[in-house]
This record gives sequence, structure tokens and C-alpha cells, in this order.
Amino acid sequence: MSSKPSTLKGTRDFSPVEVEKRTYIIEIIRQAYLRYGYRPIETPAMEKLDTLTGKYGDEGDQLLFKVLNNGDFLDKVKPEALDKRDSKAVLPQIAKRGLRYDLTVPFARYVAMHQHELAFPFKRYQIQSVWRGDRPQRGRYQEFIQCDADVVGTSSLLCEAEFLQIYDEVFTHLGLQVVIHINHRKILMGIAEHFGYSHQYREISVAIDKWDKIGRDRVMDELIAKGLTGDRIAEMLDLYESGDMSSLRHLQPTGTLAEGLAEIDEILSYVDMDHMTQKVYLDIRLARGLSYYTGCIFEVSSSQVDIGSLSGGGRYDDLTSVFGLKGTSGVGISFGLARIYDVMTELDLFPATAVKSLDALFLCMDAASLALGWRIVTGLRSEGARVDIYPELGKFKKLMKHADQRGVQRVVIIGEDERKSQLYTLRDMQTGDQQKLSLADLSIVLSTDN
Amino acid sequence: MSSKPSTLKGTRDFSPVEVEKRTYIIEIIRQAYLRYGYRPIETPAMEKLDTLTGKYGDEGDQLLFKVLNNGDFLDKVKPEALDKRDSKAVLPQIAKRGLRYDLTVPFARYVAMHQHELAFPFKRYQIQSVWRGDRPQRGRYQEFIQCDADVVGTSSLLCEAEFLQIYDEVFTHLGLQVVIHINHRKILMGIAEHFGYSHQYREISVAIDKWDKIGRDRVMDELIAKGLTGDRIAEMLDLYESGDMSSLRHLQPTGTLAEGLAEIDEILSYVDMDHMTQKVYLDIRLARGLSYYTGCIFEVSSSQVDIGSLSGGGRYDDLTSVFGLKGTSGVGISFGLARIYDVMTELDLFPATAVKSLDALFLCMDAASLALGWRIVTGLRSEGARVDIYPELGKFKKLMKHADQRGVQRVVIIGEDERKSQLYTLRDMQTGDQQKLSLADLSIVLSTDN
Repeated sequence: MSSKPSTLKGTRDFSPVEVEKRTYIIEIIRQAYLRYGYRPIETPAMEKLDTLTGKYGDEGDQLLFKVLNNGDFLDKVKPEALDKRDSKAVLPQIAKRGLRYDLTVPFARYVAMHQHELAFPFKRYQIQSVWRGDRPQRGRYQEFIQCDADVVGTSSLLCEAEFLQIYDEVFTHLGLQVVIHINHRKILMGIAEHFGYSHQYREISVAIDKWDKIGRDRVMDELIAKGLTGDRIAEMLDLYESGDMSSLRHLQPTGTLAEGLAEIDEILSYVDMDHMTQKVYLDIRLARGLSYYTGCIFEVSSSQVDIGSLSGGGRYDDLTSVFGLKGTSGVGISFGLARIYDVMTELDLFPATAVKSLDALFLCMDAASLALGWRIVTGLRSEGARVDIYPELGKFKKLMKHADQRGVQRVVIIGEDERKSQLYTLRDMQTGDQQKLSLADLSIVLSTDN
Repeated sequence: MSSKPSTLKGTRDFSPVEVEKRTYIIEIIRQAYLRYGYRPIETPAMEKLDTLTGKYGDEGDQLLFKVLNNGDFLDKVKPEALDKRDSKAVLPQIAKRGLRYDLTVPFARYVAMHQHELAFPFKRYQIQSVWRGDRPQRGRYQEFIQCDADVVGTSSLLCEAEFLQIYDEVFTHLGLQVVIHINHRKILMGIAEHFGYSHQYREISVAIDKWDKIGRDRVMDELIAKGLTGDRIAEMLDLYESGDMSSLRHLQPTGTLAEGLAEIDEILSYVDMDHMTQKVYLDIRLARGLSYYTGCIFEVSSSQVDIGSLSGGGRYDDLTSVFGLKGTSGVGISFGLARIYDVMTELDLFPATAVKSLDALFLCMDAASLALGWRIVTGLRSEGARVDIYPELGKFKKLMKHADQRGVQRVVIIGEDERKSQLYTLRDMQTGDQQKLSLADLSIVLSTDN
């Protein structure tokens, strides 16, 4: 029966210190969402496979984790499919559940399903795990937490402005320096139109999105491979090479392009740029892969660590119609917890208070001291102190080693002397300083920390 | 493409109000765990199927949700199994992942896997979802949150005493009246021994556990069906009928029975019964189904609502040896969030502060007012107030209806009058009372709530 225990590749355990640091990040995001009027919802980890399939492209469908039907799952499978070992045909017959792949599609399903209970515009945040069958690698996991906020049921650009402010507040509060990249799908479309490639808008967006990774020459190769012809490709790439939105003004924009720029202008007019701590960059090369975006798009990158995007988002005009609810424009963002955690770890930005060690650990030298220590600890806990007691007798050295391993900053030592004098030894584990305190003083010292 | 959206049977969405009330319960449990020196860990939702299989009995194995391997999952299945449609033989060839069924087995795996990083006794709490393929019914879900705490690596009975105190504090804080049932596996074993049925100890425990549901006569039938013979069955059931542990003293206990009683006495000696708010009942009919318990066992029931157990737990001597780590005695408890929620809802025990509505919602009557309102809202948010603004223009009635649907208690109305006078209308949605406030006063009123 005994086996060497391990976790699945692409998944991991989180130790107390890791959970506490992750909670520190989540709480900063959550408090910002709450301040802006977002409220929490939660959806099940398992959705109907139908709800998820077809929403993330062919690649997404393959990366969805499917949950096997319980019981004798082969019983009702049609012989043809089974005989041919046709996994694709067998799949819907043996699995009707899937694990959610992101929080956006479950949210769209939620909005459509509960539309009559909701007040629109509806603002919700959602902080839950998602699962993707990507090949595991450094920094990429099959299970990870997303921290999303979306507002649906309004096309007001105040919402976009709010997200810029939320970005500024959250990353500043975390102590990170970031660049908030902004673009607009109508700008990407407008550029394609301007150069006569409006039919190849999607292909261009996909290629441009890779610019920073693969460079101009390979973007050009990709566009030609996708069937773009004519001498204006190079001219268009010259424009993209400049990167910044200001270069578009020279094109004397009209139509779609002008619409996109006007929306960006309006959004920025709502934001008090003088009070923004973080950089905003109007980045015409930002495309974001997700096909449902139709308006403004966001992406946030670290100025300090090269790790990819820390957050992304954008406006979509038609997320819920696939679930039968038409005409609900919305906009949302999503923070990636794991990457923010990695950047903060690399830059050593977690404050000491993020890790919640004990106020004190009691170490008792004999049976009578243990009985006394237990009573004192019980009393302190009822006053709200976070204290613990080593529940057995043991050599002083062993007990001190335990305190050290647990990372506690202070121990209270009780032995015969302390019992007789009713003065208890409080020892700072880092400095080794000791003082003798009465129970009343101990209570004051340990409870004022909270 | 359009389909009527729904969730899977046995799973559900949680609205903002539901999430906030659930969070209220979780926070009370979490704060108690923290005060007692427990710290959080998290484990993946998906474990290796090997880790989970065989830990919950045959029924549990069937109720485990298995996750299908990605890609062409039928490719490597052996033809024999497939041809025979042998689901059981095919299963391990197409699924290597399972969803966790409880938090105890993943914790045991965690302890064994990370044993060299941990300081024993190791105290952890874990608040995560678990999944079980039970047939969905009222109050029984396929996905639900458990709130566990365990300490491993010590046999000190101070740990059991701590859990009694945690129970008392948590349920009292929640405003519930409960009975904490306590028994000891050695008492169950000792009773079986005393009446000469020591070999049928397991069968007796399983039957006794159902006493309150099925009654004495059917327990007797079940024992006879399980092969118990002799005239002492009735005598034993007379003892169980009394229910209370005090009746055992007449047996002049020796051996196993005496050991169990001595442990219960020791645990109770650590608890200051005069300060307990909740009832403790020494319940010899408490058996708990889980096979891994070896010492003291707990179960908490509501005194007010007939809904089954709100929490359970106990001591186990050998949870990690299946993962290669021997001799780590531990004890733990688990709160069931959904049932506690249901009881609190039925008794209307959630305080108004559990639901986090906005400090105020701004409603603006024209474009200039919306621009002004936006600036005021931005300023208030930066001071920490939780305020929102209806981001579009609309008729007053429509805006008020939105405020009402969202459940906000106060709105701030800005129109031409307010703009000119720089006095803003704060309206209580419940009473309809209105007052005109300067920006400075508004800031004071809205921020003092936080």
C-alpha cells in the first residue's frame, strides 16, 4: 500500500508562508474591487462540458480538463466509436462535466442564467481557481487562481477609467512598478483598413501580438504566409514599429480608426493622470489573443522583472449572446496571482506582517509548568492573542529548536522559577533578549500586537 | 450556438449576498484557528488518482470524480478491456487524476511529502472545496467547502481540549446553540470486549452509529444479520440505550474501556467547563463512520434545527503510514460550511454587517453632474470609502430602481441644484430621509462607516 507521495505535474502545494503571502496579494486586489463597488460571486469548478466547449478555440477545447462520468461509464457508449478508438466521438458519451478554464465564460453563463435577478450594470469580482491542460513548465501551472472583475450591461467608458485607477492603486499598494499598456480593437481594425487589409484584420492582430517576442521580420514573414500581399505591408509595419499611438495622428484618422482613438481620448479624460503613480502607455502593438474583445484592451507588465503580463483585460460587446442574452456590453480585467507572487518574491516586496506567525509560543519545562502554561494560554487566547503551547514535555534544546523551525519570534518559558515567582520569561528568538513579566504585563505585551 | 444556460446538478452558483454570508462564517472559523496557532496550507484540487483510491472504502472509490487524460486518451488502452467494455479495467488507463474527496487524505499526503520541512507537532488549517459524486439532493451537493484543522505529530490530549474550546468559541460567536458529542473509539471497543464481541467491534460501531436514525430494534436486527449471536446482545443494547457515558461506571471498567474513559477524563480536566457556553455530551452511541479514527471522536449537532452534524472529527494514529510516514498520531476537526449556513439562514442569525453593500451609490441627473459625481466618487474612494456611481444618464425613477435592486442603503443625488449650491443630497433608501451635505461633510459621513 505504501507509495512515495507526490503531486501531479503542473500542480503544487502551498505552505503556510506561501498561502499567507498569496492571501496578502489577494486582499489588496479584493479591497480595491470592493472600494469600486464590485461584489463577489462564486461559480462551481465543474461546468457542463457544453458550456465550456467552443469558447476558447480548438486549442482551448483540447486543454479543457474533462471529468469522467461516474459509474459504468462505458455502458452506453456506441460500439462504432469505441471500436474505432475514436476518442473525439467517445468523449461526449463518457464525460458531461469539465473544469472551468477561466472565470469569464462561467461569468457569462451566470449573467445569462440569473439575468432576471441582477441589477444592470452588474459589477462582480470573482477570485477562484481555473484549470488548463497546458504542458507544465517553469511558471506555468495546470491549476491557478485568477482574480477577475467585470462590469456588464453598460457601454459607459467610465468603467474603463475605473480599471485604470484600480490598476494604479493595486500595483502601487503592492509596491510594484508597472506599465499599463492600452490599445483599442478599433485602432487595430482601423490600421488594417487604412492600409487596405481590412479582411485580414484577425491575422494581422495575431501576428502583431507576437512582435515583442519574435520581432518585425518574423511578423512580416507570418503576414505573407497568411496571404497578405502588396507593397503596403512594409508601410504598415513601419507604423507599428513606432509603437506609440501618437504616430497615428499623422494618418489623419477617419472611420473606425478615429472612433477607436476618440474612445481612448475619452477614457483618458476621466483619469486624473497627475495622480497616477504607474506609467500608462498607448501601445498600438497590444492585440491580446482572446477573440471576444471588441473595444479597449489592457495589459500590465512589470518594469522591473521580465516575466510577461501581470494582468490583462478589455471590453467585449457580445459575451453572453452564446447563452441567449443579447446586447450586454461589458469590460473586465484579470490579475494573475502566480506571476505577481513571483515578481514580488524576486524583488523581496512582501512586508513582514504578510506572514502571520504567532504572538508567542509557550515552552514548559515540567508537568506543573505545562498545566499552568495551558491555563495562561487559554486566557490569552480568549483575549484575542495568537498564542500556542508546545503540548508535551521535552528538553529545552528540543523545544527551542521547534520554536525556531516554526518561525516564531517570541517564546514564553515557564519552569520552576517562573512558577514560584509568577514572573514569566519572554524571550526574543532573534536577539536572544529575555525579560521577566507578570501575567498582567504579558497580556499587555501580547495583545497590543493585534 | 445559443443554449439555455444552467449549472450541473449538485453544483450551484453563489450570489454576492451568499458569498458574503459564507465568508462571514469562514472568517469566524479562520480567526479561531489562527488564535489557536493553526496556519493555512492549500493543496491542489486534482491529486494523483493513486493518492485518493482505496482511502474511502469501495463506496468512496465510486464517488471519486476522475479527470480524463487529455489528448487521444483511447490511444493506449489495451484492446481486451475496451472490447469487454470493462469500465473498471479501462479507468486507470484513461484517467490518472482525481478531484479531492476530502481534505484529510491530501493533508496526510502533504505531511508525508513535506515531512522534512515541517516542525512537529504541525498544526494546519485548510479551507477548500471537495468533490463527491453523491446523488444530488436537498442539502447534499457534489461540490462543497470544508473547513478543517488538524494537528499531527503529538499524542498530547491538550489538542483534543483545544478543539472543544474552538467548537465552543466558533459556535458561540456564530450565535448558534449546539451540542458537542464526545466519545472514544476505545470505549466502543471496550464495550464490545466487555460483552464478548470484540471480533465484531467494527460491525457494532457501524450499527450503533445509526441508532438515532433507525432505532434500537433495527440496530438489533442489523447486528444479528452481521452474525452476532448470544444473549448478551440485548444487555449490550440496554447499555447503549442509556446513551450517556456515566452508565459505564457501573461496569467497573478495566482494560480498553478503562483506557478510553481515562482519556476522556483527562481531556475534560483541561477544559474549564464553567466557561463553556455550549453543551458537551458524553455520548457512547457516537461512532462516526470513518475507519481511520482510533481515539477520541467528536460530532456537533444543532440544538435548534434538525439537520445532521455541523462538524465532526477525531484522533487517528495512523493516517500517514499509507504514504510512507509511520507513527504520526494526529487529531482534527472539519466544519461543514453549507449546513452551518443553512441553520443560520433558518434562524436568521447573520448580522446586517455580514453583507457588504456600498457606503453610497451616486445618481447623476445630467452630463455635467455625472462628470462632477465621477470626480467626487474618485476622491472618496481614495479615502477608502466604498462608493459607486451609476455610469450613465437616465430617468430618476430608473436610477432609483437600480439602487433599490442593488440593495444599497444610501444614494447621493447630484443635479443642477446640487451643482450650483455645492450641497449634495444624501438619501436614506429605507426611510426616504434626505439631507444636503457639503463635500467635506459627505466625506466624513461616508468614511466613518469604515
